[in-house]
Amino acid sequence: MALKPFFRGCLIAIGGNEDKAHELVVLKHVVKEVGKTRYKVCVITTASEAPEQRGKDYHDVFTTLGASGIEILNIKTRAQANDRTLAKKLEDVDLIFLAGGDQLRLTTIVGGSRILETIQNRLEEGALIAGTSAGAAVFSDTMIYEGKSEDGLFKGKVLTTSGFGFVENIVFDTHFMSRGRIGRLVQIVTTNPTCIGVGIGEDSGVVLRGDGTGEVIGTGQVIVVDGSDITHSNIIDIEPNESIAVENVRIHSLVNGYGYNFKKRRVLRPHLNKLENIDA
Amino acid sequence: MALKPFFRGCLIAIGGNEDKAHELVVLKHVVKEVGKTRYKVCVITTASEAPEQRGKDYHDVFTTLGASGIEILNIKTRAQANDRTLAKKLEDVDLIFLAGGDQLRLTTIVGGSRILETIQNRLEEGALIAGTSAGAAVFSDTMIYEGKSEDGLFKGKVLTTSGFGFVENIVFDTHFMSRGRIGRLVQIVTTNPTCIGVGIGEDSGVVLRGDGTGEVIGTGQVIVVDGSDITHSNIIDIEPNESIAVENVRIHSLVNGYGYNFKKRRVLRPHLNKLENIDA
Repeated sequence: MALKPFFRGCLIAIGGNEDKAHELVVLKHVVKEVGKTRYKVCVITTASEAPEQRGKDYHDVFTTLGASGIEILNIKTRAQANDRTLAKKLEDVDLIFLAGGDQLRLTTIVGGSRILETIQNRLEEGALIAGTSAGAAVFSDTMIYEGKSEDGLFKGKVLTTSGFGFVENIVFDTHFMSRGRIGRLVQIVTTNPTCIGVGIGEDSGVVLRGDGTGEVIGTGQVIVVDGSDITHSNIIDIEPNESIAVENVRIHSLVNGYGYNFKKRRVLRPHLNKLENIDA
Repeated sequence: MALKPFFRGCLIAIGGNEDKAHELVVLKHVVKEVGKTRYKVCVITTASEAPEQRGKDYHDVFTTLGASGIEILNIKTRAQANDRTLAKKLEDVDLIFLAGGDQLRLTTIVGGSRILETIQNRLEEGALIAGTSAGAAVFSDTMIYEGKSEDGLFKGKVLTTSGFGFVENIVFDTHFMSRGRIGRLVQIVTTNPTCIGVGIGEDSGVVLRGDGTGEVIGTGQVIVVDGSDITHSNIIDIEPNESIAVENVRIHSLVNGYGYNFKKRRVLRPHLNKLENIDA
């Protein structure tokens, strides 16, 4: 994982559909990661098609989670994304939360705007950025925005564009187990094994730190798809829409307490098994 | 792949939903594999909840494909499965085709019966056995019969029982890409890496031969899940319904023309790339 120089803080990528009503395992972890008893959060609902309702839901849950200030930014236009007054609202928050929906709405409306610049500045200053579903998909420099699960291994059926670039050479996919998206990430790492695929299950997440490690949180799985051992694929020999063959894709299923070193491409086992980490 | 001594012929496992109306790529390959211009086929519709309609569909398609004799066996009870007259109908056919539906119906009704014994004898005598969806799931000694895709990586959520045991140590899963079933096979190979998982896409199949090789046919992908490199999993430390962590599962996506050597656990590339097969 190549990290941008401004990456001082911490990113939390969530796989979508995190519990907002009962145990709140993932969101409690997000708040714990903020590391303050009094904290301000700003929720950006741009990805959502029902931003008011989404904003209300997060207002409720962050109230439950004891936030001392909650700002909901329903940014719907590029004019709003460039608005100084709105951008200013991000300046003293401790946590910026990107809600889910369609990641292409998020990049289309917020890409290259004052709001995004402010988010990047806040990340540099140490703020925590968390995103769920579409809000996590935008984290990397390469973002999947379209592609049916069953078409994941047909050439060109997984569409990507530039994301927000908080991290490089990771591609995030979300709702990963529920939507059976392994093929999408296999296609991504086949076309360029530099990228590491991270498929995040619902109610699960990865806490990414500046040292290039990620820690899994939540109740489900995070699947890491590593193409560095690929010995052969047909991808340069086939036409778009043809079926992809590829040998030796390595996958890991990681759960709460496990981690991954993106620089060394190595699984980090829970602390209980420290010895095994050394042996590995 | 450990093969039973009686395995002389050839098995074709199909991922379900094979084209029966247009190009008939997979079914034409099945007929080609029979290797006769005049051939008799028997279709067993036991897995289906609508066996008469299913039987009619296959009667139509095998008529199109020039079968000289077509027998449809709508076996619905164990009494029928033990009926000498019905079993006799299998004795001179060249191809036995197990239609799709619910594999548990197939094993429950046909398991341990005269019909199954006859099928096994016919396989020993060199007949071709093909099965689609449920009809392919029963091929192995271990058969998945239940487990939601999204629950595939929760311990115990993938239910298996004994299949017909035509091959050992392979577990077949079908409708693989369309239903996103990778987690089910990862759980299977994690619990015992002896097993090789074979996830067959729709309108795709694997031709299994007695030498332990399989050849991929059809328009989609066949995913091989190989657990022999697994270095660690949490499966013996967790309770049922808890989330499975596992490191280093190897997967391959294979398409028409590719093959797999189940004994050596090695991908066989198309003949064009013979040199690469030697290098590998």
